[in-house]
Amino acid sequence: MSDAPLTSVSIAAQIRDGLIEAETVTRACLGRIDEAEEQVQAWAHLDADFAVQQAQQLDAVRGAADVVGPLHGLPVGVKDIFDTVDLPTENGTVIDAGRQPEEDAFVVSQLKQAGAVILGKTVTTELAVYAPGKTRNPHNPAHTPGGSSSGSAAAVAAGMVPLAVGTQTNGSVVRPAAYCGVFGFKPTHGLISRTGVLAQSRVLDTIGVFGRSVEDIALLAQSIAGYDDADPDSRLRARPRLLEIAGEEPPLDPLFAFVKTPVWETATDETRAAFAELSDFLGAQCDEVPLPDPFEQALDCHRTIICADLAKNFARYHRAGADRLSDTLREMIEEGQKTLAVDYNRAVDWIAVLNAGLERIFERYDAILTPATTGTAPAGLDSTGSPAFCTLWTLCGTPAITLPLMQGSDGLPLGVQLVGRRGDDARLLRTARWLAAHVEAAER
Amino acid sequence: MSDAPLTSVSIAAQIRDGLIEAETVTRACLGRIDEAEEQVQAWAHLDADFAVQQAQQLDAVRGAADVVGPLHGLPVGVKDIFDTVDLPTENGTVIDAGRQPEEDAFVVSQLKQAGAVILGKTVTTELAVYAPGKTRNPHNPAHTPGGSSSGSAAAVAAGMVPLAVGTQTNGSVVRPAAYCGVFGFKPTHGLISRTGVLAQSRVLDTIGVFGRSVEDIALLAQSIAGYDDADPDSRLRARPRLLEIAGEEPPLDPLFAFVKTPVWETATDETRAAFAELSDFLGAQCDEVPLPDPFEQALDCHRTIICADLAKNFARYHRAGADRLSDTLREMIEEGQKTLAVDYNRAVDWIAVLNAGLERIFERYDAILTPATTGTAPAGLDSTGSPAFCTLWTLCGTPAITLPLMQGSDGLPLGVQLVGRRGDDARLLRTARWLAAHVEAAER
Repeated sequence: MSDAPLTSVSIAAQIRDGLIEAETVTRACLGRIDEAEEQVQAWAHLDADFAVQQAQQLDAVRGAADVVGPLHGLPVGVKDIFDTVDLPTENGTVIDAGRQPEEDAFVVSQLKQAGAVILGKTVTTELAVYAPGKTRNPHNPAHTPGGSSSGSAAAVAAGMVPLAVGTQTNGSVVRPAAYCGVFGFKPTHGLISRTGVLAQSRVLDTIGVFGRSVEDIALLAQSIAGYDDADPDSRLRARPRLLEIAGEEPPLDPLFAFVKTPVWETATDETRAAFAELSDFLGAQCDEVPLPDPFEQALDCHRTIICADLAKNFARYHRAGADRLSDTLREMIEEGQKTLAVDYNRAVDWIAVLNAGLERIFERYDAILTPATTGTAPAGLDSTGSPAFCTLWTLCGTPAITLPLMQGSDGLPLGVQLVGRRGDDARLLRTARWLAAHVEAAER
Repeated sequence: MSDAPLTSVSIAAQIRDGLIEAETVTRACLGRIDEAEEQVQAWAHLDADFAVQQAQQLDAVRGAADVVGPLHGLPVGVKDIFDTVDLPTENGTVIDAGRQPEEDAFVVSQLKQAGAVILGKTVTTELAVYAPGKTRNPHNPAHTPGGSSSGSAAAVAAGMVPLAVGTQTNGSVVRPAAYCGVFGFKPTHGLISRTGVLAQSRVLDTIGVFGRSVEDIALLAQSIAGYDDADPDSRLRARPRLLEIAGEEPPLDPLFAFVKTPVWETATDETRAAFAELSDFLGAQCDEVPLPDPFEQALDCHRTIICADLAKNFARYHRAGADRLSDTLREMIEEGQKTLAVDYNRAVDWIAVLNAGLERIFERYDAILTPATTGTAPAGLDSTGSPAFCTLWTLCGTPAITLPLMQGSDGLPLGVQLVGRRGDDARLLRTARWLAAHVEAAER
C-alpha cells in the first residue's frame, strides 16, 4: 500500500491465499488516510475502529479456511449518498446533517455479502449535483477532484482505499475518475440496483465504481450487481461474468469509433490534440465516426429530464430549506418545476432514438473512443468542471469507462473514455483492458 | 354458430379432431355477420374472401394431419387500432382514413402464428378514446356497446366471432365486455406486447381479449402473450399457462374481497343491490374490504397521466386536424399540454404506492370483487358510458376480468369484475372460472 498500490484483484488473492491479513490491509489504508486526509479531504464519515473490527471478523472467517465472498477483506469507500446502518448518510447537504439510516442500501448489503470492509463514507457534492464538497484533487490540491463522486475518486487516487462506489446522473463517476487519474466505470443503466441511494432521476441515476485497474472495477461491479425487485429498472438476468471476460483476449483486435460528440469544441486544444494522436496510434483499428443527427438534441434532453426529476425528487429539500440549497441546485429545481410533461416525455422517448443510432455504430465497432472530460482538472475548488463529455452516455444508459492513460502539460491526468453497447458491459471491459495494455506497452 | 354459440376451446378441439373444418366455422361467422351487421355495426373492415382464404389454407394444413397452433381455425376480430398488413387500420379517426400499415402488430403476428383466422377489423371509438363509433349494443340497438373496444365486444356478443382482441387504457375492455354480456379480460400490464398498436399511454395501455368463457379468454391471452423487445414494458418470462391453470380446481374455495372503490356512489341502486346480494351469496368466502387511503387520489392520477400522454402521443393528430377531433379528445389533449412534469411523475410514482396497498389485500384474498360498470349499458349512442369502475385497475396494471353473470331490470347484462394481483393472471382466471361455475350452478 505504498506509492504504487496493489490492485484489488492482487490484494484479494493474497488474502484468499493467507499471504496477508484483511486487518493489515485495512490498517494500511487507515495509515494512508492519516497521512493524506488533511490535504485531500476525501472522507465524510470514517470510523477506524469499525473498519478494523470488520477486517478482524473477516480474518477470523479466513482462519477457518474460507472466504466470505469475492471482495473478502478489501476496503471499499462508499459515497455518502448510499444509506448505511453503521455510519451516517448526509447526502452532502446540511439539511441532512446527522441523518442515520436504518437500512443499508442494496449495494452496501451486496458489499458486505461479498466480504468487503466498509471503510467509510466518501465526500459527495451537495445532493450529488454540482455544488462542491471539501475534497481536493490528490495530484494538486488547488484543483478540483471533479464531482459528484469526489471523495470516492480522490480516495482511490490517493491510495487511501483500493476500491470505491459512486453514482453518475450526468458525469459523476467518469469525470472525477478522469480528473483524479483512476479507473472509473459506469455500467449499463439498471445493472446495479439503486435502492437506498439518494434518488435524483430514475431515468438517469446509475451506480458506478472506482479502482486501480480494469480488472479491479470488473471485480467490484460484478460483486455488487444483482437483481433487485425494488429498483424498477433492475432486470432479472444472470450475474455478468465481468471479471472473467475482461481478462480474456479479444478474438480480433478491437475496432474503435472515435467520436467527437456535439461538445468537441468545448475540449481544450491539448485534449483534442491528444485524442488525434491516440487515434493515429490506433491506426486502422480506429475510425472517426460522426454521431447521428438526433444527438444534437441530447444535451437538451438530459437537462429537461434532470431538472424535472430534481423538482420532484428534491421537493422535500426545497420545501425544508430552499435557502440552504446552492443557487445552482435551487435554479435547476425551479426550472424543473416548470417543465411540461410533454417535453419531459419527449426527452425520455428520445433515449430510444439515440440508442437506435448507436446500434449502427456498435454493429461495426467494439467501443466508442472519446474524451472523458474537456481537459485535465481545472484549477479552483468552486466548480467540479464540465460533465459535457459524459452527459450523452448517461442519457443513453450505455456502459462507459475512463482509463487514466494520458497526462496534460500541467502534470494532471487526462482520461480516455470508452463507451459500449447497452448491456455489453463485459465486452467493453475486455476492450478497455486491451487498450490499456496496448498503450502501456507502447510507452515502455 | 346458432343462438348459443360454441366456445372457442370447443371449436378448436373439433377442428383439431377433424370434426369440423375451419372454412365452415369462418363461413358460419360471415353468415352471422350478414344477418346482424346492419343492426350491430361491429366491423370497420371486413374482407370475406380473405377470411375464407385463410381458413382454407388452415384446412389444407389440417388435412396434412397437423395444426398451426392453439388457435388453429378460430376466427378472431381485431380492434381497428392494431396494425394489419392485410386490412386497413384507421384508428377510428377520419384523419387516418385509408391508412394501410406495412407491418402487422406483434399481436396480429402472434395470432397468425397460433393459426387464427383474422376475420376483420372491429370498430373502435375515435383513437380509442371516448367519441363513439357506429357500433350498437347487440342486446338493444338503442343502447351503447361501451367503448373503446366497441366492435370487438359487440361482435363476440352477437355471435359474429368467437374471439376478439382490444385494448384498455381506462375501461376499454372490461366496460364494453360488461355492457355486451361477454367475458372480457385485461391481463397484467406488459404481459401482451403493444408494438404496432396505436399508442395512447405507455403507462396505461394494455392489450385485452374477449370471448365466451373464461377458458376462451385464457386460450387467447396465452396465445398472444410473449416477450417483445420492442415494447419496453414487456418482460422476459415463461409463457403463462393460463388455460391449464384456469381449468384447475382451486386448492381451497377462493376468498373474495368485495371492494366498493371511491366511485361506489356513482353505481346505480340496482348495481349496488346486485353486488350486496352476490356478496351475501358468497357468505364467509367474501368480506367487504376498504381500499387504503391513497386510492382516493387514483382517479386524479389516471387523468393526469392520460391527458399528458395523449398530448404527446396524439400531437400529430392535433397538428394535422384539431378541428377533426372530437371536442372531448381535443380538450383532453389541450389539458395534457399544460400538465407539469412533476405532477405527471408524481402520478406515475403513485402506482407503486397503490400496488403496495393492494399487496396487503392479496395476501389474504384471491381476488377483488367489484362492479365492472356503474350499471347496464346506458340508452343512447352519444356516449360509451362511465369507465369509473375500471380506471383504478388500469392504473395499477393489475389483471381484471368481467364475467357476464348478472342482468339488469332492463334485460341488459351486468358484469361482475374480478381483479387479481399483478402478474398473477392465471390464478385470477382460475378464481373467475370457479365463480362463474358456482353462480351458474346456483341458478340452475
